[in-house]
Amino acid sequence: MKPIYFTPGPAALYPTVEAHLHQALRDNIPSISHRSSQFRAIYQSAYEGLRELLDLPTDMGVFFVGSATEVWERVLQNCVEQASFHLVNGAFSRKFYEFAGLLQKQAHKQEADFGKGFTAGELHVPQGIEMIAFTQNETSSGVATSVETIHDTKDAHLDSLIVVDAVSSAPYPIFDFAKVDSLFFSVQKAFGLPAGLGVWIANERCLAKAQALESKGINTGAHHKLTNLWQFFKKFETPATPNVLSIYLLDKVVQDMLAYGKDKLRDETDLKAIMLYDFLRESELFDVFVENPEHQSNTVIVANTRQPASPILKTLEEKGFIIGSGYDKSREQIRIANFPATSVEQVEMLIDAMSELS
Amino acid sequence: MKPIYFTPGPAALYPTVEAHLHQALRDNIPSISHRSSQFRAIYQSAYEGLRELLDLPTDMGVFFVGSATEVWERVLQNCVEQASFHLVNGAFSRKFYEFAGLLQKQAHKQEADFGKGFTAGELHVPQGIEMIAFTQNETSSGVATSVETIHDTKDAHLDSLIVVDAVSSAPYPIFDFAKVDSLFFSVQKAFGLPAGLGVWIANERCLAKAQALESKGINTGAHHKLTNLWQFFKKFETPATPNVLSIYLLDKVVQDMLAYGKDKLRDETDLKAIMLYDFLRESELFDVFVENPEHQSNTVIVANTRQPASPILKTLEEKGFIIGSGYDKSREQIRIANFPATSVEQVEMLIDAMSELS
Repeated sequence: MKPIYFTPGPAALYPTVEAHLHQALRDNIPSISHRSSQFRAIYQSAYEGLRELLDLPTDMGVFFVGSATEVWERVLQNCVEQASFHLVNGAFSRKFYEFAGLLQKQAHKQEADFGKGFTAGELHVPQGIEMIAFTQNETSSGVATSVETIHDTKDAHLDSLIVVDAVSSAPYPIFDFAKVDSLFFSVQKAFGLPAGLGVWIANERCLAKAQALESKGINTGAHHKLTNLWQFFKKFETPATPNVLSIYLLDKVVQDMLAYGKDKLRDETDLKAIMLYDFLRESELFDVFVENPEHQSNTVIVANTRQPASPILKTLEEKGFIIGSGYDKSREQIRIANFPATSVEQVEMLIDAMSELS
Repeated sequence: MKPIYFTPGPAALYPTVEAHLHQALRDNIPSISHRSSQFRAIYQSAYEGLRELLDLPTDMGVFFVGSATEVWERVLQNCVEQASFHLVNGAFSRKFYEFAGLLQKQAHKQEADFGKGFTAGELHVPQGIEMIAFTQNETSSGVATSVETIHDTKDAHLDSLIVVDAVSSAPYPIFDFAKVDSLFFSVQKAFGLPAGLGVWIANERCLAKAQALESKGINTGAHHKLTNLWQFFKKFETPATPNVLSIYLLDKVVQDMLAYGKDKLRDETDLKAIMLYDFLRESELFDVFVENPEHQSNTVIVANTRQPASPILKTLEEKGFIIGSGYDKSREQIRIANFPATSVEQVEMLIDAMSELS
């Protein structure tokens, strides 16, 4: 039997991906021109599907780049002249912050300990911050920032762009895009696709910022600068040859998620998260790592192990369940992805297998 | 019957790709961790295969990025402090040149008309040029620069880095990597893979240059800066999640090409190019576009059509052959890719179909 992947990325494929991949090969999708009407129809369909799935307003552009990590760089290059502010509470939020320094921006941060999160009232944003960067779901620690905290931050800082890394949570959180200026994710997490595509969503305020930087002669990059991405997006094309196959698969999976029901998909994520946290809380082998329930991610669930984690991972693998190792190697931890690709039944099976550990 | 793609990218899949893709799904390649020994083995095998296929010396690193277009940006950011020099003779060499300006380098160029090429003795490289950029195969016009011209340029400019865009030719040309400091390509051209992966090859002189720029506090980018790519390459990893599936497929196709025989593969490319050029030369409907035989590309073959190109493309498509339209829309042209994925027999079939046109 094939193992079931509960890894936080690359992760289990969404159940329909294999069939779509076969159809893509039958239809020669890897060979079609990215300047053809066939490609433009794929891009447009993926865009419209994402708009429906994520409740995007019509003023937001949707761009396809190499990875979410690339977006860290692009959004800093294109939307920050001087200063960005980063909420740092794990490895990925820290790298996003470090990118700002590498790109010679004034990088400000507020830190929380590994496993801790942020709440709107407790943020201390310095003056003159152009972009506030949230790593909404810190994949390394399993800490999520609530959408309310993000929305409240916008209300308190209307002049700043609110940029949200939703790499290991989208399409689960429901954002109010009146209060989020840019969102991005990779497809190999909760969308259940092979890695190799980043999706960057940005509104016209981001575009205006990029245009302003360009008019000042500031270097906004070359390959994927926002003004260029946007110009090609208007005709559903990309500046260079993109990962056409992955965009095709993303479109298909988004349509499948919509057909399944986006509410149902989110309700099931909630249900599976409750099942997993309940099990971990009552287990004698595991402890939920993130103590504050308001900061516990529903899509990446992290637990401390009371025994060395490595043999636990190995035993589970032998039973056909591949879960994530801890990101911080100085701790004995496991990480369990709770993405739409894995069903309630599969989570039950995983919990049964974990119950048998001793 | 499935059509045969003779498009210059995205192009026909190498014949073994479908089977490898099925095996990848059976083996859960899209779900494996990019921090696992399984991934490192794939990277190492792809690296060693490319070394053998391209005759790379041991001091060159092989890095996986989003696309060849991304490499234009990365190599300029990491290997040029002040000034680069570009041989410009078509749309892609021009964009590479324009990237240098966008990245605020002093961008110098020598231009040739569309359809013309360059010869070593005729290059006028200004003083103080750190990088000489060749678009070895100009996909828009079907003009190739000979490897001898590139090698001779190195001999005449030992202090400059020689950087070669071999997007639509690699692995066909045989370079002497004592005289080429960096080479890059996309996999959706002559490697016959789905788009979504760029391969960047660079030697230790490029690395030393990137290190020197960093030590001077110059912005070399963040996501894919060369020092970081190299550091991860040493353990056969990538800084962020790469297109694992595409690297897997690249490895498999490179092994298949080696098993087929790299000499045979290049000899067949020569043979197919002769067949195509001979046909075009004798045809009453087509004229070879690139007049100088020394500048005619063997991998992207461009012809003027004596009738409007569009109905020709349509008729060929109805017969099951998809060839490329001209890149310059002001001309009546066709482009025919001559990549390893299409066999001598398939080229014969295409020529037969083109012979029947009137």
